[in-house]
Amino acid sequence: AMSVDELLARGPMQESAELRLLFHRLNNQLGIILAHAELLEAKAPDDAHRARAAQVVASALEAMGTANEIRRYATPTPEAS
Amino acid sequence: AMSVDELLARGPMQESAELRLLFHRLNNQLGIILAHAELLEAKAPDDAHRARAAQVVASALEAMGTANEIRRYATPTPEAS
Repeated sequence: AMSVDELLARGPMQESAELRLLFHRLNNQLGIILAHAELLEAKAPDDAHRARAAQVVASALEAMGTANEIRRYATPTPEAS
Repeated sequence: AMSVDELLARGPMQESAELRLLFHRLNNQLGIILAHAELLEAKAPDDAHRARAAQVVASALEAMGTANEIRRYATPTPEAS
């Protein structure tokens, strides 16, 4: 049987297959956004479109960072630590 | 003192202020992506740009849904349930 101490030692969230799947899906969706936004930035017809596409690129990178922080918060002790 | 049963009853992740902040930040970043992508779609100079911007809009909406699923997974019993 597991003690409270052991359970707490696992970190604030319990890692699970479902959670891994959800993070994987989120990363894929952010990757699609990033790829399209980079192409929109490269092929922008003018500076206004380019600046707007660059904002999407920047926000997609930031969102990837935040998703990783949430994931790290969820799984503070990865297998290879 | 809290029992293992009580701790498990709280759900797979422990809600915390830091986690709420991270989800809030992620939602903001996705909202910025969505707003810019919708404008890029509306002001696209041709069908290729429009289709690409529409893909960013679709992926941003999907990412918001996935983020909400992760959050729901993290906090299975919101205050007003």
